Amino acid sequence: MRAALQKGDGYAGTSTGPRIDNAADWLELATMPLPEIAEGQVLVRVRRAAVNPSDLHFIKGEYGQPRVAGQPAGFEGCGDVMTGPMAGQRVAFVTTGAWAEYAVVDAATCIPLHPAISDNDGTGQIVNPLTARAMMGMARDAGDAVIITAAASQLGKLMIALGRDMGVKTIATVRRDADLGADVTLNINAPDFQTQAKAALSELKPRMMLDAVCDQTSETLFCMMPNRACWVSYGKLSDKAPNLTQMGQMIFMGKRIEGFWLTQWFRDTAPADQMAAIQDVQTRFADARWATDVSAELQLEQVVNGLADATKIPDGKVIIVMA
Amino acid sequence: MRAALQKGDGYAGTSTGPRIDNAADWLELATMPLPEIAEGQVLVRVRRAAVNPSDLHFIKGEYGQPRVAGQPAGFEGCGDVMTGPMAGQRVAFVTTGAWAEYAVVDAATCIPLHPAISDNDGTGQIVNPLTARAMMGMARDAGDAVIITAAASQLGKLMIALGRDMGVKTIATVRRDADLGADVTLNINAPDFQTQAKAALSELKPRMMLDAVCDQTSETLFCMMPNRACWVSYGKLSDKAPNLTQMGQMIFMGKRIEGFWLTQWFRDTAPADQMAAIQDVQTRFADARWATDVSAELQLEQVVNGLADATKIPDGKVIIVMA
Repeated sequence: MRAALQKGDGYAGTSTGPRIDNAADWLELATMPLPEIAEGQVLVRVRRAAVNPSDLHFIKGEYGQPRVAGQPAGFEGCGDVMTGPMAGQRVAFVTTGAWAEYAVVDAATCIPLHPAISDNDGTGQIVNPLTARAMMGMARDAGDAVIITAAASQLGKLMIALGRDMGVKTIATVRRDADLGADVTLNINAPDFQTQAKAALSELKPRMMLDAVCDQTSETLFCMMPNRACWVSYGKLSDKAPNLTQMGQMIFMGKRIEGFWLTQWFRDTAPADQMAAIQDVQTRFADARWATDVSAELQLEQVVNGLADATKIPDGKVIIVMA
Repeated sequence: MRAALQKGDGYAGTSTGPRIDNAADWLELATMPLPEIAEGQVLVRVRRAAVNPSDLHFIKGEYGQPRVAGQPAGFEGCGDVMTGPMAGQRVAFVTTGAWAEYAVVDAATCIPLHPAISDNDGTGQIVNPLTARAMMGMARDAGDAVIITAAASQLGKLMIALGRDMGVKTIATVRRDADLGADVTLNINAPDFQTQAKAALSELKPRMMLDAVCDQTSETLFCMMPNRACWVSYGKLSDKAPNLTQMGQMIFMGKRIEGFWLTQWFRDTAPADQMAAIQDVQTRFADARWATDVSAELQLEQVVNGLADATKIPDGKVIIVMA
């Protein structure tokens, strides 16, 4: 089978963010034997695979699990089960090795897809939607309003939509003017950003910031947030390390800084609650409340040469098409 | 009465740490009328008052409550109650205005002192001991070992002693070689500090860091700590803002950054639990398990000219003597 293979091995020890200038630094296209499955696994013929920021962190050696040189990259996709009792079923899946014609997947994590769901929506069925749902649940438990940074991302848009359903007011930060349907949208490059941010935060009092950027602007917003606010980091789009300029925010105001990782959420969440979340996500896609904005589709052969440019197209997801 | 009065008003908006070069920038000695007491308050004739880092943060406008120009500084002391049913009783107290011949104190917060406790020990009876006890309780709940930064401080020494009693292993950081009785002592200025720190943290796996410094060395230690570790800031001896160099520590390793403030502990802790903690503290001082190391005693008249130099004497507490 053909696959986009990881070139690096282990962790890089760097922290340069999910941007890439040349995918050939991290990936190579190769033909390899079909992978073998073990007990509890199935072989999936991949239709399409997602390119999430976590994939880019991963191939660069900056993610929470180590690379294995010579193995396919890619965490998420949709395809057809080829083996076992689910054979023939179209499913969404997460694994390591989705950027390939075939992937080995734990059978328990295969999610059968409703016919109303397109392959593109099926490809982005797990990582972003479950992250959005889990984090917005945390935000609702924390208070009446939430800050969502880099809100023009697929994940940001899902969270804004969830905020409306859940009655959580959303304060969205963006790099260029956009109408995302949030209660307040703040352009971080606007000359009056700080004034607008102070006004919005004073009025809505967000107790949580769901942050994919983690730069100095994030820290500025954190310092503007009310007592007992929580800065939740779930990504690192910025390659700059933020300064903690006011430790008194932690000491006197009871604020805290934490992280969110979907892998940990799976470990901590009961299977029944996971299934309920997955069903809810699928219903939202099936009835068109949610949809995946696709910024680019790449054939597998185009990934090494085309991925860097494709990921620079804003506000949508890059999809890798296998056949 | 004579008193050392705050010169600044409100917050300074700066973050320069608890060091002062000239107390006259922040304090002036003055004679003022005896303060009036309200319902539930008593007048205390102050014997001695403590100089804690929080006092220095406060007079500089960098503490969690605003200054009031023309009012006495000082949070903690011991003295004799002059009014009400407790009149004649020697007590430890916290208030705002202890650096004066007389202080107004909430009667409910006056702690009668056992005759075996000296005035100096009585002066440091509340802020440091209760902070030590509350934070080491958190550390014990978090794991088997704890990092204590700036451990040569009065508070650091109390926490190391508590660690022995509570079965919590202590990793102490210091700026110069010292034997504090901790399980491991790390000199942050030693050439092999990083190697020693890595070895100690790998072996003892501290899940909490109780940090009075909050500089880049703190962040380095935080990144070396095991999964789910917590960095608890309770002071800011450094005037540098630490960089968060690895957000992945929060995202993938479930670590978090929080603060501790004794004022908040009083708000969150049931009165009976507060009294139990206070009794335990007093017993430790009365039976000489704990003692206050005094680095300098200043008469009230010496505070404005002498406080800056006195606070530069390491490893002990400055005491202000009223009479």
